[in-house]
Amino acid sequence: MTTRQIILQSRPSGAPTLQNFKLENTTLDQLKSGEVLLKGLYYSVDPYMRGRMNDAKSYVAPFKINEPLEGGVVATIIESKSDNFKVGDTVVGRSPWKEIFVSKDDILQKVDTNVPELSYYLSILGMTGLTAYFGLMDICKPKTGETVVVSGAAGAVGMVVGQIAKLQGCHVIGIAGTDEKAKTLIEDFGFDQVINYKTTKDIYKSVKDACPNGVDAYFDNVGGEISDAVISAINFHARIALCGQISLYNSKETPMGPRIQPMLLTRSVLMQGFIVGNYQDRFPEGMKHLTSWVKEGKLQFTQTVVEGFDQLPTALLGLFEGVNTGKMIVKA
Amino acid sequence: MTTRQIILQSRPSGAPTLQNFKLENTTLDQLKSGEVLLKGLYYSVDPYMRGRMNDAKSYVAPFKINEPLEGGVVATIIESKSDNFKVGDTVVGRSPWKEIFVSKDDILQKVDTNVPELSYYLSILGMTGLTAYFGLMDICKPKTGETVVVSGAAGAVGMVVGQIAKLQGCHVIGIAGTDEKAKTLIEDFGFDQVINYKTTKDIYKSVKDACPNGVDAYFDNVGGEISDAVISAINFHARIALCGQISLYNSKETPMGPRIQPMLLTRSVLMQGFIVGNYQDRFPEGMKHLTSWVKEGKLQFTQTVVEGFDQLPTALLGLFEGVNTGKMIVKA
Repeated sequence: MTTRQIILQSRPSGAPTLQNFKLENTTLDQLKSGEVLLKGLYYSVDPYMRGRMNDAKSYVAPFKINEPLEGGVVATIIESKSDNFKVGDTVVGRSPWKEIFVSKDDILQKVDTNVPELSYYLSILGMTGLTAYFGLMDICKPKTGETVVVSGAAGAVGMVVGQIAKLQGCHVIGIAGTDEKAKTLIEDFGFDQVINYKTTKDIYKSVKDACPNGVDAYFDNVGGEISDAVISAINFHARIALCGQISLYNSKETPMGPRIQPMLLTRSVLMQGFIVGNYQDRFPEGMKHLTSWVKEGKLQFTQTVVEGFDQLPTALLGLFEGVNTGKMIVKA
Repeated sequence: MTTRQIILQSRPSGAPTLQNFKLENTTLDQLKSGEVLLKGLYYSVDPYMRGRMNDAKSYVAPFKINEPLEGGVVATIIESKSDNFKVGDTVVGRSPWKEIFVSKDDILQKVDTNVPELSYYLSILGMTGLTAYFGLMDICKPKTGETVVVSGAAGAVGMVVGQIAKLQGCHVIGIAGTDEKAKTLIEDFGFDQVINYKTTKDIYKSVKDACPNGVDAYFDNVGGEISDAVISAINFHARIALCGQISLYNSKETPMGPRIQPMLLTRSVLMQGFIVGNYQDRFPEGMKHLTSWVKEGKLQFTQTVVEGFDQLPTALLGLFEGVNTGKMIVKA
């Protein structure tokens, strides 16, 4: 049996281009016992995938040249040699970038299809939501009345972070890249204020103006000069969760900037890098809160859905141009 | 009654010089009820004082122009209008840089004089020891078998940190600025290895060679390129305690360097700035451990004692040239 797949043809130097990817046909192996055959419905496209395109040590292994990329997926079972799944079941798991793929049954999880969007299992009811929940609640530890700043606020994680911070009674400032995104975050997601970092003349001044009492917690998705500005307004005993550094991912050279340690030192600031996997033992706790907030309508979400399996590379490149609002999804 | 005092005559731009200080005579006020008159025996000279010479927001207020500097002191009571102290008592407290000074009695603590050195109350049995203890035990959280790196290792805090880390069963690497300091740290204080950052050709390579299993915990007293090198070898889930950034204190411009957040992010590293005052509630716990380790001979200490009250400015400037091994003390 054949299907289409998207492989990593070459590693990018700086910003990736479509030439780094290749769409091709491939043959699938016969199903073995304990395996299922799946058709992908929704594929997750995430900023961390850029790091996996480099050949560098990180928290996940690099993608291999001439092999398919890989990521989260919602899929339906079209053939089963597993006792746990039958044809027609909808599951969430991970898959190579193939339209049809084989998976062992023990890494798949059957999902309740009675949710607003099946693709939510790749986002607010999946790693995106859990990343926002644990980074904010466990590292930023927001307290009522505190000022919380979120960079990459219109990204999938950022918009959830801001809403959870509002649920904790915080004053929430987002940083995003278009006035349209800013408007959505304020009107639909309850942010108190959003700074457009692309149009502001002085990001340092904008942050200080938006945070007259200083910054108590910073959930950082972007890094770079935006973070320099937020850190310049950081309060004593503030907490900074490092979730992403998307502004730096395409740097060819080691990015340089003002040294931050003197500020962290003199203000007794905590900075913690994390990945959601660190909290695996506590996923049920996170899912419980996220699910109930979504059901109660307290947590809104938005996605950018790109149609067509072959659009996966374009969707990934689009993340770095900020074309998405919220989670980027490809619908096969 | 008159005494001598040392005032801040001007704020330094970059490295301070003797011209920033002035030795002069001053008149003391009459003792009021609840006050005592003291003669300073030992004055503490510390890197953080450099920050207080600037007119900048930090964790302690800046020194004022034309007023005496101020710091920790061991002193003897020469006149008392307090019910709690009598003439001849030895106390630890804080004093303006005056040879004889007046203090309220409620900020003084009487000390047991049956210790190896009275000046230890300004160091290993004082803020220095407590800083090492809490920064290491509470932030670095060293576990048996882990690799702990200490910069400024021959400084007062650094040498205590290394010894406590050895007591926790760690592999301890120090970074210091002379071969003589390195020898002392290894032979007298039990460090496993010490890198001389002034003579190494490649500090990045030296750190990697000294830490073949990577760095699990880093107690940072210096910042700058030394820290860049240590962070380049940092392990997943490592802990970094920011205690000092002495290499940067004399910078006139904002110091620039490679951005560290991508490394902290991809390796889930914790970085925490702190001052010992954050742990005030737990000082008794720290003192209990430090005192018993000192009494059992498990914790050694060394000091650089400069003689003469008028040498306080010279001793302070000497810190930035690394003339001291261990705590810098001025004996009046």
